Amino acid sequence: MLSISQRGKEVSPSPIRKLVRFADEAKAKGTKVFHLNIGQPDILTPKAAIEKVQNADIQIVAYTPSNGVSSYRNALPRYYKKYNLNVKPDEIIVTSGASEGIFLTFLACLNEGDEVIVPEPFYANYNGFAEMANVRIKPIECSIDNGFALPTIQDFEKVISPTTKAILLCNPNNPTGCVYDEKTLRSLADLVKKNNMYLFVDEVYREFCYEEIDFFSVLAIAETQENVIVFDSISKRYSSCGARVGAIVTRNKLVLETLIKYAELRLSSPTFGQILAEALVDTPDSYMENVKKEYIGRRNLLYKRLSAMENVKCYLPQGAFYILAELPIKDSDHFCQWLLESFSTDNQTIMLAPATGFYSNRALGKRQVRIAYVLNETDLNKAMDCLEKALVIYNEK
Amino acid sequence: MLSISQRGKEVSPSPIRKLVRFADEAKAKGTKVFHLNIGQPDILTPKAAIEKVQNADIQIVAYTPSNGVSSYRNALPRYYKKYNLNVKPDEIIVTSGASEGIFLTFLACLNEGDEVIVPEPFYANYNGFAEMANVRIKPIECSIDNGFALPTIQDFEKVISPTTKAILLCNPNNPTGCVYDEKTLRSLADLVKKNNMYLFVDEVYREFCYEEIDFFSVLAIAETQENVIVFDSISKRYSSCGARVGAIVTRNKLVLETLIKYAELRLSSPTFGQILAEALVDTPDSYMENVKKEYIGRRNLLYKRLSAMENVKCYLPQGAFYILAELPIKDSDHFCQWLLESFSTDNQTIMLAPATGFYSNRALGKRQVRIAYVLNETDLNKAMDCLEKALVIYNEK
Repeated sequence: MLSISQRGKEVSPSPIRKLVRFADEAKAKGTKVFHLNIGQPDILTPKAAIEKVQNADIQIVAYTPSNGVSSYRNALPRYYKKYNLNVKPDEIIVTSGASEGIFLTFLACLNEGDEVIVPEPFYANYNGFAEMANVRIKPIECSIDNGFALPTIQDFEKVISPTTKAILLCNPNNPTGCVYDEKTLRSLADLVKKNNMYLFVDEVYREFCYEEIDFFSVLAIAETQENVIVFDSISKRYSSCGARVGAIVTRNKLVLETLIKYAELRLSSPTFGQILAEALVDTPDSYMENVKKEYIGRRNLLYKRLSAMENVKCYLPQGAFYILAELPIKDSDHFCQWLLESFSTDNQTIMLAPATGFYSNRALGKRQVRIAYVLNETDLNKAMDCLEKALVIYNEK
Repeated sequence: MLSISQRGKEVSPSPIRKLVRFADEAKAKGTKVFHLNIGQPDILTPKAAIEKVQNADIQIVAYTPSNGVSSYRNALPRYYKKYNLNVKPDEIIVTSGASEGIFLTFLACLNEGDEVIVPEPFYANYNGFAEMANVRIKPIECSIDNGFALPTIQDFEKVISPTTKAILLCNPNNPTGCVYDEKTLRSLADLVKKNNMYLFVDEVYREFCYEEIDFFSVLAIAETQENVIVFDSISKRYSSCGARVGAIVTRNKLVLETLIKYAELRLSSPTFGQILAEALVDTPDSYMENVKKEYIGRRNLLYKRLSAMENVKCYLPQGAFYILAELPIKDSDHFCQWLLESFSTDNQTIMLAPATGFYSNRALGKRQVRIAYVLNETDLNKAMDCLEKALVIYNEK
């Protein structure tokens, strides 16, 4: 019998996108769906950069170098300078989103069967990338009770086995909004150095830090330059998710050489996106200041609304634009689908991401949902009205 | 010791790109390098489509649906109609180039360790995609003596083992320029059906057929709709390699469902590229007619020049824009690097792709090079002057 592959059958579906067809059906019935499921900001992309793409003199939409357009790689260090990071163009490989960067790094650094420690809950697609690359995620649990702070170094040490080759963090964290401070990151850097492991850090939400803690990049740690690999992207900071432009940054030359071989296999990152990305490097700081102000308002609103709901557990996220809330429900997958299939109030409903997909141990996410605060405060308020009502009705059943 | 992965050490480098740094060094010394190594056409991208991108009203460069922008998927069937193919939007998944399509299809259809039969020489990156997906390429040799025509069905049958799950063809073929006729393709379709295998066909050079043989797509074979998966791309036909827009086309619903899960993991294909791609669907036929005329001229010139060189074996390619020629050399890797490092005439040299990378058995490509005729006839003539002189000097050493 002709059949699909076993791994294809088993691949973890994206919790963020898997309910799309139920949302489409709800919309077809005329219901307004507030999308809080996906990290697609409603913030405008900087206009000047879009205009650069639109005014570019392009005769042939040609392949670009596999490691990225060199003028873009030469411009990017100016961006990192803002964070007091000294990054050289040769330390950057442009990728099609951070997603591609993570996947290719798994291939370049890890053998099949190797383990990566990932604090859970974690960005759901890490599961899929690990499956694609045939590496194993070793989860280490964080708790909503302390806002999903990282476990202690001793907790990390306890799960290191001979096949553990890396720790993967997302900082600021998707889906929890937790931001890791310098001290914590330096201890983890020491740990990976001691154990000859890599420290992979997904920093695509770098700009989105709302508390006193300044963002600290692991690229600033001199002692572990060989161990550290950072994933970056223009998707979130410039509201440019569709450009598909990310980057891998590392000082490890052997890793860079290996990554380039993989990058060559997929030929190049998109031309238009890289023109946009290059123009975005010179986005005035005021753009991000306004964006941040906007998100702080949304976060505060969301926190206030959720805190006021009965039996909802939440915390004030310090960064990114997500909150992982615990609801009075027993099955978040069922609840999120029910919101789209069977619920509406004033002809409106919401789409959330069930948290089960953000855990390796899916049971841990049964009562939690990820809420992306990517809508303006008016819509966010309406969305919270929906959630509040929905919880009452759902629990009456 | 911190180290890269074993697979990273072993991954097949792209023969098309691996000499890039030698080319850069030659250029830095002031030598003009004729690029015949890479399938990057010098033909202009249709202007009207670039203008559509440039005039698009884009406020947010947002994620697109994982299976592709729906207006583009709805437009594509109009393109396939020109080939009398009835393709439905739901049978299409937009990918970031055909490369991504092939890799994701390997994951979706093949288990680790499964075999894919590929006539060799074959597009070098198939090796890399197979390694990334942990599947094995089972090569089946074609010969320059009959213009790299496909082996017989019996030859294919002979290499089928219990773990052989697919045949992968490129039609028209890169790197040989061979075009497979309807009869041959139907026999192969029968063979895969009989053996419960997939037939993967990379049809990105569909437009580039120069002889009486009409292009025949395996999508037209009604009996094997479940078995057939076609990879497509706008890169070659519209000179849009940098847009990174390809597609997977299949009628197999289970494969489509599985592919969508993988497509969701990498979120989406590029937004700008898909706007371009959608506009390209309505490119007037005259564009391709002119392109074809141009390539026929180049091919004829290249064939004439190569045939006139001493001890060079070649054949008239029927399609695509490559020729795999046999030269009086013993080590094509050495020769191609030497061309860039140590040779120039009138301050000019050429970059070719050593054929070793296009074979599973690298020894078979030691005397062959792939020449992409992607330059105009004037430059092509100059490039052939270089090659002719280079062969004399190289063999005097």
